[in-house]
Amino acid sequence: MGDNLVKKILKEHLVAGELIPGQEIAIKIDQTLTQDATGTMAYLQFEAMGVPRVKTKLSVSYVDHNTLQSGFENADDHRFLQSIASKYGIYFSRPGNGICHQVHLERFGVPGQTLLGSDSHTPTGGGIGMLAIGAGGLDVAVAMAGGPFYLTMPKVVKVHLTGELNPWVSAKDVILEVLRRLSVKGGVGKVIEYGGPGVATLSVPERATITNMGAELGATTSVFPSDEVTKSFLKAQGRVESWVELLPDADAEYDEIIEINLSELEPMVAQPHSPDAVKKVSEVGPIKVDQVAIGSCTNSSYTDLMRVAGILKGKMVHPDVSLCIAPGSRQVYRMLAENGALADLIAAGARILESACGPCIGMGQAPPSGGVSVRTFNRNFQGRSGTADAQVYLASPEVAAATALTGVLTDPRTLGPGIIVNQPEQFILDDRMILPPSPEPEKVEIIRGPNIKPLPVNKPLPRELSGEVLLKVADNITTDHIMPAGAKVLPLRSNIPAIAQHVFAPVDSEFAQRAQAKGGGFVVGGHNYGQGSSREHAALAPMYLGVKAVIAKSFARIHRANLVNFGILPLTFVRETDYETIEQGDVLKFTDLHNQLLNGNVLTVQNETKGITFETEHNLSPRFIEIILAGGLLNYTKAKAE
Amino acid sequence: MGDNLVKKILKEHLVAGELIPGQEIAIKIDQTLTQDATGTMAYLQFEAMGVPRVKTKLSVSYVDHNTLQSGFENADDHRFLQSIASKYGIYFSRPGNGICHQVHLERFGVPGQTLLGSDSHTPTGGGIGMLAIGAGGLDVAVAMAGGPFYLTMPKVVKVHLTGELNPWVSAKDVILEVLRRLSVKGGVGKVIEYGGPGVATLSVPERATITNMGAELGATTSVFPSDEVTKSFLKAQGRVESWVELLPDADAEYDEIIEINLSELEPMVAQPHSPDAVKKVSEVGPIKVDQVAIGSCTNSSYTDLMRVAGILKGKMVHPDVSLCIAPGSRQVYRMLAENGALADLIAAGARILESACGPCIGMGQAPPSGGVSVRTFNRNFQGRSGTADAQVYLASPEVAAATALTGVLTDPRTLGPGIIVNQPEQFILDDRMILPPSPEPEKVEIIRGPNIKPLPVNKPLPRELSGEVLLKVADNITTDHIMPAGAKVLPLRSNIPAIAQHVFAPVDSEFAQRAQAKGGGFVVGGHNYGQGSSREHAALAPMYLGVKAVIAKSFARIHRANLVNFGILPLTFVRETDYETIEQGDVLKFTDLHNQLLNGNVLTVQNETKGITFETEHNLSPRFIEIILAGGLLNYTKAKAE
Repeated sequence: MGDNLVKKILKEHLVAGELIPGQEIAIKIDQTLTQDATGTMAYLQFEAMGVPRVKTKLSVSYVDHNTLQSGFENADDHRFLQSIASKYGIYFSRPGNGICHQVHLERFGVPGQTLLGSDSHTPTGGGIGMLAIGAGGLDVAVAMAGGPFYLTMPKVVKVHLTGELNPWVSAKDVILEVLRRLSVKGGVGKVIEYGGPGVATLSVPERATITNMGAELGATTSVFPSDEVTKSFLKAQGRVESWVELLPDADAEYDEIIEINLSELEPMVAQPHSPDAVKKVSEVGPIKVDQVAIGSCTNSSYTDLMRVAGILKGKMVHPDVSLCIAPGSRQVYRMLAENGALADLIAAGARILESACGPCIGMGQAPPSGGVSVRTFNRNFQGRSGTADAQVYLASPEVAAATALTGVLTDPRTLGPGIIVNQPEQFILDDRMILPPSPEPEKVEIIRGPNIKPLPVNKPLPRELSGEVLLKVADNITTDHIMPAGAKVLPLRSNIPAIAQHVFAPVDSEFAQRAQAKGGGFVVGGHNYGQGSSREHAALAPMYLGVKAVIAKSFARIHRANLVNFGILPLTFVRETDYETIEQGDVLKFTDLHNQLLNGNVLTVQNETKGITFETEHNLSPRFIEIILAGGLLNYTKAKAE
Repeated sequence: MGDNLVKKILKEHLVAGELIPGQEIAIKIDQTLTQDATGTMAYLQFEAMGVPRVKTKLSVSYVDHNTLQSGFENADDHRFLQSIASKYGIYFSRPGNGICHQVHLERFGVPGQTLLGSDSHTPTGGGIGMLAIGAGGLDVAVAMAGGPFYLTMPKVVKVHLTGELNPWVSAKDVILEVLRRLSVKGGVGKVIEYGGPGVATLSVPERATITNMGAELGATTSVFPSDEVTKSFLKAQGRVESWVELLPDADAEYDEIIEINLSELEPMVAQPHSPDAVKKVSEVGPIKVDQVAIGSCTNSSYTDLMRVAGILKGKMVHPDVSLCIAPGSRQVYRMLAENGALADLIAAGARILESACGPCIGMGQAPPSGGVSVRTFNRNFQGRSGTADAQVYLASPEVAAATALTGVLTDPRTLGPGIIVNQPEQFILDDRMILPPSPEPEKVEIIRGPNIKPLPVNKPLPRELSGEVLLKVADNITTDHIMPAGAKVLPLRSNIPAIAQHVFAPVDSEFAQRAQAKGGGFVVGGHNYGQGSSREHAALAPMYLGVKAVIAKSFARIHRANLVNFGILPLTFVRETDYETIEQGDVLKFTDLHNQLLNGNVLTVQNETKGITFETEHNLSPRFIEIILAGGLLNYTKAKAE
């Protein structure tokens, strides 16, 4: 049997391990990207490794998250990122230049290469045939320093596309259909590879919408072939030389195959509060809407917004709907400004926001209390909009624009014949908002504002550990519970001492204070501990507060890796019933820890308060054990380099 | 001797009093405007008066302050304002439609009419020949209910303009020159009336820049004649029927005359941290700049931004400068979008912000730590930008644009021949983002979010008052000390119980808690108590906390009126040395208060803790005494109406 596309790219980049699903492999990373909310920490980590210049083919630092700038912290971060990029050989995309994934697709993505990004929507690059994976900032820092990226070899699921989208049906509806079928856990441990004759009917931005939102499946990544459509996109971006053809072998093997006939799809929405709560718009019906928000890394391309402009041209937004639109990049913005579409949007009553993530990450445009917001974004978790009781629906730009006009959720097929927007033969090419690194790095001084604090580094694992159970939580704790984000906390991402004060705030507002008063300790959790966003601050900040181990019934994959990266032991109960015996405040003790770790999978824990003993498993690979013993990946990497 | 322009308008509107400087007069108000940060409270107050429909010729409710929407509060306020406007006969300018003063000038201002606005930059309307005055929200509510506006008859200062501005010299430089000469206190108790042959050389937006920033003189307002230039502006706005000629008599009398030869002016800046710290750009020299911000109610007109676009076209912002531009209104924004200038701005690397107040009120785009920001705004008070140690310079759009290109403070005269931008013959006329009131008000339901709390109302003044001195402060306490603003506190403006927790926070973080624990009490102040912004929350929130009287060495005018409006006694020491005898925590007592107030100017106070007695003066007009006895203007107005 032949190779699928994923295997082909992995083969080209394999550094260690075997391509057998479930086994740990290491791959070489060609490109990295960061955004500002994760990037400041990633570059502090890179700096701590003492490598004078990035060793990737290309590394880009974007600013797209903290662009409201309600205090000095954001502008300080931007200045820090600009200066450190210049020094270490990294391209810097200035605030206002757009959303990392959109800009990277336009200006930097190369089919067949690997991309590691400190943002969970990095798989957007799969739309152009990259193997593009989201990871913690420290993993990205290691990749910039030339280290490989370790992951569990995923299964490869083929989504076999046939047919062609009908008018008013959109790439968003394809990924919503996939989410409807697979659910938000359906992609765990898998890469989604798109194939079949339907692929050729989808443009690169459409493919990117699909791979972007594949993150919501829990998949490692998603990828499309690189074909003539890819070539024409790269040609229009003035980068045809970056194109290579990349197709699966005709007899390629897959672990699973899903069939989707594009012709059978119709406009859909994901209902509150999950991206997989998908229904047809026609089924949900004309519910009253307060806000429509168009943009985000999922749906803010030139063709997306041209379709929106086509729908809105000459019409007026409903008086009870606030419509905001954020172009995905400065390229998109300029093209809309030059061809008159932006004037049409403004005339129709749209509120045009800066080209950035904006409302998708709760940075502004929070809906009113209990308000219904229809958004072209990728996540509708409760409260993410900034309004705890808002009802957020995810939909295509076509559904969003139609809804903005009528004031109720609207199937765009009621608007008459579809609007056809072709990819331009030539995009506006202007990279002046992307600053290349300095040719004289030794002259560049890194500018650190008072909010940019030195990176806390863990100590090597001691032979004995003891301390209190600081908190006991139930199942399905997300990284949003552990380390909340939003307009208030996100600006503190470069300041671990400050952001650490918010650890577990949604669960227990006294956690941080207690952890520090007790000199650290342990957290006990239920199933699926650490699900959701990949933010490494959910490990780094607890580490700063002295958390030494998390004992849970089970872990979410990325968070478990982040815990290891920062030297926190992720342990599971051998007998789940032992969970019941532990209470907050119990003193736990591990003895002879190094030998236990190196000589077996089981660690014995004494509950000194209860006078009982229970067993935990670590399930750590030999490399993960070395990292834990070193006190985290940073110490491990430095030791290896010496 | 003949009448000046101010006297002519006042004569037409006089309801009570005589036009003798220093005497209290009452005038009829034709138009009102509110913005969202002061408007929610003003409409709650209007509602409390029980009047079914506004009695002005025109009232408009704008949304331009809280447009970032980091939480549900802002969108809730917008929805409340929209519904209450519809019910009570008020036009509603939707979020995204622009800054109140710019939109009002374009679409509603009428020469010779009076305009009362709950925003200190309401004098912008003077650019079109209105007598436009800023006031507290309650004063605006009373005017909407048909009541007159009471003010002290000001002196009238003529600024006699001769000559003509040279290329690259701007209206901003005219008002900076006036500020340089008169200082930020130079306009107190005065109206500034512009006249002389130089007037005809200035367009309406240029005049509006000058009257707008006249607020920084402490003046009651500023006004220009209504002439052929005014007529051509109104004609281009499709409103020539609103035009009337309005000129001072040839032999008009003035209290003071200042001469400015426009031909002699050159580009200037106000240095940190005061609008009157004015120097020539050429004197300050090429200091390094981190940010340039263009917009605000002072300098965001079509012609302002067209000049900026002309300077930036084909060029690129300096790599170390973040340039943000916010168009003043949707009209301006659309025109720039349609004529290609917006594309030029985006191409030059500008970050385009929504049409709103934005960074001028610290709503976003805070500069980096210690950063230098050159702004076309009207205020550069320390910390107002959102960054406590930022260095903010105020300058014309021309200086700002030139500086954005070079990265250092730049005299635009170095750029070659000036750019000429003429007023368009016809502005784009499109009022679809201004919602007219409902023709069926009884069917309109007012929508109140959970952050919109009922208006607290004071009780009639008791015959005896006693309580503790809750706080003793020094000279020059501003309303920013008493009731801070900014991105964190401003969203609470509709929620007095919540915002009251921030009263005096910059001075004493425990004030609110203490005041409530003690059941209210007194504040003791030095000279110039309550200077700065006109926000009535600096009286309303202390009233909510139980503050009964403020005893100070002297008061700022507007804040003193606000205290009376909310039933707080503003008293001055008969002997300033008594200030020294009082300490925080002392128990003070007033007895036989009604008789003392009605029968003389002196109120005797017992300091029970110290066992001494001292005297204070109230200096209240008979009307103010009635308001105080009633427990504030709201109670007084309701009683009058019954």
